[in-house]
Amino acid sequence: MAKDKQPSMTKRADDYSAWYNEIIANADLAEAAEVVRGCMVIKPYGYAIWETIQRTLDGMIKATGHKNAYFPLFIPKSFLQKEASHVEGFAMECAIVTHSRLTKNDKGVLVPASPLEEELIVRPTSETIINHFFKKWVQSYRDLPLLINQWANIVRWEMRTRLFLRTLEFLWQEGHTVHATFEDAEEETRKMLEVYRLFAEETMAMPVYVGRKTEREKFAGALHTYCIEAMMQDKKALQAGTSHNLGQNFAKAFDITYLSKDQKQEVAWTTSWGVSTRLIGGLIMTHSDDAGLVLPPKLAPTHVVIVPIWKTDEEQKKVIEYAQEIKAGLQKHAYGFGRLEVELDTRDLRPGNKFFEWEKKGVPLRVEVGPRDMAAGNVVVARRVGGEKETLPKDKFVADAVSMLDAMQKALYDKAKKFRDENTVPIDSKDEFRKFFTPKNADKPEIHGGFARSGWCESGDCEKSAKDELGVTIRCIELTAKDEKGHCGFCGKDSKRRVLWAKAY
Amino acid sequence: MAKDKQPSMTKRADDYSAWYNEIIANADLAEAAEVVRGCMVIKPYGYAIWETIQRTLDGMIKATGHKNAYFPLFIPKSFLQKEASHVEGFAMECAIVTHSRLTKNDKGVLVPASPLEEELIVRPTSETIINHFFKKWVQSYRDLPLLINQWANIVRWEMRTRLFLRTLEFLWQEGHTVHATFEDAEEETRKMLEVYRLFAEETMAMPVYVGRKTEREKFAGALHTYCIEAMMQDKKALQAGTSHNLGQNFAKAFDITYLSKDQKQEVAWTTSWGVSTRLIGGLIMTHSDDAGLVLPPKLAPTHVVIVPIWKTDEEQKKVIEYAQEIKAGLQKHAYGFGRLEVELDTRDLRPGNKFFEWEKKGVPLRVEVGPRDMAAGNVVVARRVGGEKETLPKDKFVADAVSMLDAMQKALYDKAKKFRDENTVPIDSKDEFRKFFTPKNADKPEIHGGFARSGWCESGDCEKSAKDELGVTIRCIELTAKDEKGHCGFCGKDSKRRVLWAKAY
Repeated sequence: MAKDKQPSMTKRADDYSAWYNEIIANADLAEAAEVVRGCMVIKPYGYAIWETIQRTLDGMIKATGHKNAYFPLFIPKSFLQKEASHVEGFAMECAIVTHSRLTKNDKGVLVPASPLEEELIVRPTSETIINHFFKKWVQSYRDLPLLINQWANIVRWEMRTRLFLRTLEFLWQEGHTVHATFEDAEEETRKMLEVYRLFAEETMAMPVYVGRKTEREKFAGALHTYCIEAMMQDKKALQAGTSHNLGQNFAKAFDITYLSKDQKQEVAWTTSWGVSTRLIGGLIMTHSDDAGLVLPPKLAPTHVVIVPIWKTDEEQKKVIEYAQEIKAGLQKHAYGFGRLEVELDTRDLRPGNKFFEWEKKGVPLRVEVGPRDMAAGNVVVARRVGGEKETLPKDKFVADAVSMLDAMQKALYDKAKKFRDENTVPIDSKDEFRKFFTPKNADKPEIHGGFARSGWCESGDCEKSAKDELGVTIRCIELTAKDEKGHCGFCGKDSKRRVLWAKAY
Repeated sequence: MAKDKQPSMTKRADDYSAWYNEIIANADLAEAAEVVRGCMVIKPYGYAIWETIQRTLDGMIKATGHKNAYFPLFIPKSFLQKEASHVEGFAMECAIVTHSRLTKNDKGVLVPASPLEEELIVRPTSETIINHFFKKWVQSYRDLPLLINQWANIVRWEMRTRLFLRTLEFLWQEGHTVHATFEDAEEETRKMLEVYRLFAEETMAMPVYVGRKTEREKFAGALHTYCIEAMMQDKKALQAGTSHNLGQNFAKAFDITYLSKDQKQEVAWTTSWGVSTRLIGGLIMTHSDDAGLVLPPKLAPTHVVIVPIWKTDEEQKKVIEYAQEIKAGLQKHAYGFGRLEVELDTRDLRPGNKFFEWEKKGVPLRVEVGPRDMAAGNVVVARRVGGEKETLPKDKFVADAVSMLDAMQKALYDKAKKFRDENTVPIDSKDEFRKFFTPKNADKPEIHGGFARSGWCESGDCEKSAKDELGVTIRCIELTAKDEKGHCGFCGKDSKRRVLWAKAY
């Protein structure tokens, strides 16, 4: 079998981190931009996934009444200091522009010249610069709510970076809104959290827990932060999206006030919310397997690949014609934003090599057609996940392709949800808690219990100790958490409700 | 009339530059980001135009075989020096990142810390960083052509900025491709020039001259540069897009070689091409009038606005129902990427104020419906340009709306082309040339002859003198220029063909 000749991939169980990097390299999603530390190049196949994420989410953001706009990349240094806790969270590790010109020195080497009067920060998030303009745009209650979104690149000077999950520069959307009341801001914050949940679950087939961050984990400058948290296959958590009720913190810092209906000058309320290219890291780690990338059909750049198989030139011609007919039939189906995307792979390579290439790229359906299949009016269909190869009448396959993709989308979600639910465990004692999070094998720190639903004493110091000692954080206080007296998983003190504890990316 | 109560705009003939700024302010397209010198905020209505530009052009770029990708924002300083002429053109005025951390000094003031080993330049264009990666991606002739496009933000430290036309930060697409031969690279360069011409003329309704730049005006690092040049209503030229055959300059600088079919290591050939948010400046100055923005229907975020008119509450209810029926009818029509975009303006404002607001926003069709129109089953239709108000049976209007928009799109193009052609004049003597470009009134330097089709002696020094003395440059050597002996418009020496001279943005 051609199969055996393929270089085999590192398995998840052997080295999860190496497996992750190989998935990305083998599917040609991205590569580290080694010459610009911590940055990455998003290659065409990876970028095509991002484009579909963008387009889907952009539609959802617009459908909830938001409009896109674009604000400057640079933020004056002084802006970051206007909101006291924000500066601590964001200003410290950032790219600082200090000069606006290069000049050649005596030795012909380019050196910076023309120092700026005030340094500019490459945006690590845009609350400050956007709220500066919102002050001008908001005059009266008639201007509210102001609902804006921006698609942009962001720079945070991260020390330890990983492709997609944490890079120095990344792409994201950031929503920024202004409201008349706390209640309106809170409604918006929760509405966008729900948009993120729907997107994660329905488009990415990635189940998420939905909850509120603790004070320690909330966004720097927020009143409170909501989040969606997903479980990766190593049972670690990935924060996949956040939505912040910023209260009046930024409105006060940037003087956003409005004239109310009864002619009083009131301080406004603001929110912000965002998801980033990090989602692609979550996508990879939710679905992919030891053979390569697995993509939920809704995010696959190619839905079906057809691999014609031939020996003679005459066979080649006929089989390719047959394949073209199938391709044309498939392309008549609407799917996603357009039609089914079908690749007909006529390259002069061994079929086995093609199979493995497409498998590594996570194409949902692979169709093989050889002279015998053609003669019988059949195709051989291999699903990327879920089920053996099967031979089907060509017309039946063409007619059923979309429902096969829909079934695969659902199966991926169900499988991920089952895995997550099985590894989310109520833990009721300190000892159990410690055992749950302590790897059995020191060589494989990734093998631990999963997510613990345990009590919390509500002390930030306790959270800090849990992080320092066990590498565990509170991912969120689930929105569904009920009052339930118990004990803090980490310190054992009294607790009022369970929260979700986990190791996280 | 409500009309008279509107503050009147500056007229083009009185102060073209003030008129331009008012168009942008009144249509709410953008504003200067005064706190970040030279940058701008693209507001929702302006950004919606950019989104349609992006989506249309992105489709054309993909249809010609290119794939999108994303490369780092930052370029190591040393990269800019690898291509000798490129560094002169781009490295000198740029945003330089020198530090990666802020820290508080004794006085509690944030100051830059952690200086970088090598400074990073915020990309002023991406040839260097992209070609660095292309070296790794290109191994053999099988990898060619490599056809990549990037949508990104760009920073050039411009001294004199104007909204959309020249800003410190702007948005653009930049195509970067690698080819096996000069001929292939040249074909690509010309193909993308043609894509830009088609886009400008068919989508923007902006006629363009198509030609090659002189050595003096070409892109820093290119073998040669092609461009599309449009005429604005002040008869100045706007370079609206460029396409560069980079020869082997960047391939040599970044060592992009490939193994040919006959197993020889060959140096590759590269191209690059781009258009930017500057197009929106061109759009404004091609079509808008003294009443406000005029948008070609293909780029209008809203195609039809319906303004219901009522006196009593009862009338209001009925007229709005009637308007909703019209809206629903219009929305059944496909247009652009989706359907007709219809706004029903039920705000509690005087109809006259609404009319002027939508006029300033350049909405192509405005529909007024009052109780009398409703009773007769009619609507009153006002076109933003071309034609008086007319009363039409409602159903006829709904049925004809798309063809009305198509006619307007064509009329805008025809009008702009007529203006341009009338103001493109063959000039055959030095004296005539000088007179053509010398404003009759020193207070209005913008009033001059237009574009001169004159000879050129082919000396760069002569071009420089023409620029210094008259503010005139050679916009391009038109692709259609024929051999024709004559005299240089500026210096009078012998010339082989006519070129296009103009004042430019």
